[in-house]
Amino acid sequence: MKRARVMHQGVLHNATERDGQLLLEDGQRVWQDQVTWLPPLPPTDQPRTILALGLNYADHAKELAFQAPEEPLVFLKGERALTGHRQSTRRPADVQFMHYECELAVVVGRKARKVKRDDAYDFVAGYTVANDYAIRDYLENWYRPNLRVKNRDGATPVGPWLVDRADVADPMALALRTTVNGHVTQQGNTKDMIFDIPWLIEYFSGFMTLNPGDLILTGTPDGVVDCKVGDVVVTEIEGVGALMNTIAA
Amino acid sequence: MKRARVMHQGVLHNATERDGQLLLEDGQRVWQDQVTWLPPLPPTDQPRTILALGLNYADHAKELAFQAPEEPLVFLKGERALTGHRQSTRRPADVQFMHYECELAVVVGRKARKVKRDDAYDFVAGYTVANDYAIRDYLENWYRPNLRVKNRDGATPVGPWLVDRADVADPMALALRTTVNGHVTQQGNTKDMIFDIPWLIEYFSGFMTLNPGDLILTGTPDGVVDCKVGDVVVTEIEGVGALMNTIAA
Repeated sequence: MKRARVMHQGVLHNATERDGQLLLEDGQRVWQDQVTWLPPLPPTDQPRTILALGLNYADHAKELAFQAPEEPLVFLKGERALTGHRQSTRRPADVQFMHYECELAVVVGRKARKVKRDDAYDFVAGYTVANDYAIRDYLENWYRPNLRVKNRDGATPVGPWLVDRADVADPMALALRTTVNGHVTQQGNTKDMIFDIPWLIEYFSGFMTLNPGDLILTGTPDGVVDCKVGDVVVTEIEGVGALMNTIAA
Repeated sequence: MKRARVMHQGVLHNATERDGQLLLEDGQRVWQDQVTWLPPLPPTDQPRTILALGLNYADHAKELAFQAPEEPLVFLKGERALTGHRQSTRRPADVQFMHYECELAVVVGRKARKVKRDDAYDFVAGYTVANDYAIRDYLENWYRPNLRVKNRDGATPVGPWLVDRADVADPMALALRTTVNGHVTQQGNTKDMIFDIPWLIEYFSGFMTLNPGDLILTGTPDGVVDCKVGDVVVTEIEGVGALMNTIAA
């Protein structure tokens, strides 16, 4: 099942994908461009934790001239940094390099504490696509927690769908790609992650509790390029979805 | 006014300080050890952002043998890392060095976007005390975002009080100190911050929105020591409060 959360005529709906349209929970079918898409995350009455990996594909680490890490390079994102499918993300006026990052995002389904990697997938609700834009101008030194790079309002599109875990046969063998204005600029495969999904769930749950609705952005392969105002950026993952975003001034 | 949020006989109460006791909103007065203290943060119906500063006192940066930063070293914390006054925080079994960090915490009172430093205090609701414990074993290289060091469940006590901004004449001239089992081990003054509160509010609000209930932990002065299981750690700030925590196995 592919699930979405959308605003339609001012009302929030849970929806599912049906023959290319959206089936709202009240039975209406609507076109995908007739709604405002929200991140497809289950609502939580508790704080949501959003974890993001840096340099989790060896080729991307090499591209940025860094050594591949021996331990995951992880940072937190604020939930206010998220936005939905078909939204726009602002490019600051004074920067030289803003790049997209196509990432497989794992949505946690059950409370996870000290989980072993063999059991890790039992704690996954499903998958979505994230575009974890980075303002590289502010990266400066990679030893700095990169708040200005990674935590701008609405600068991280997520969606369109939450795809149920059961519908993704092998999340560690999915093609990823990004197109900018229709031209392919990034290609990769989740099999090239340095720290794979079961490893990450064991690692995180070893020192902190993961809760339903928490999100793990698993990093991006190489092929990042600068995005200009007006660019249409589509980050796409095989069997998970195609997430569209437009760069605004 | 000093405000608290406490559980008393299974019910959540807003409370204020009255002659050393707690005055609950229903008019009851109770002793401070008769309640379970929660972080004194106003509830929010939107995600809360928690920002924390590293190395924001020159002496502490020197203590850890780092250069003082030229730009704030900032990381996000998950809200699930917070706990209240008089709670305990776990020391992992296999670590060599867990230290406290007494910090002045700023609670945001109004939506702040591109605020100038001269206006910054208008956006502050008040102040509380945080103890931003760090598991130094996991720090390893300071260029790593320090999730294992800083984002453990309930490892960041905050409280006891939210003290209204109007009741703190000059937040940039407050004595801080920490005692471990009654012995003073850390002393400092907020005047020694590298990046002061107005500077930080201008900086953050320049690239992200601060919202009511958001929290900024402003860093710690030097004098951190290892804490053992059973230690009673009190982090205290002049005019703001004394936050007690016990180290558990």
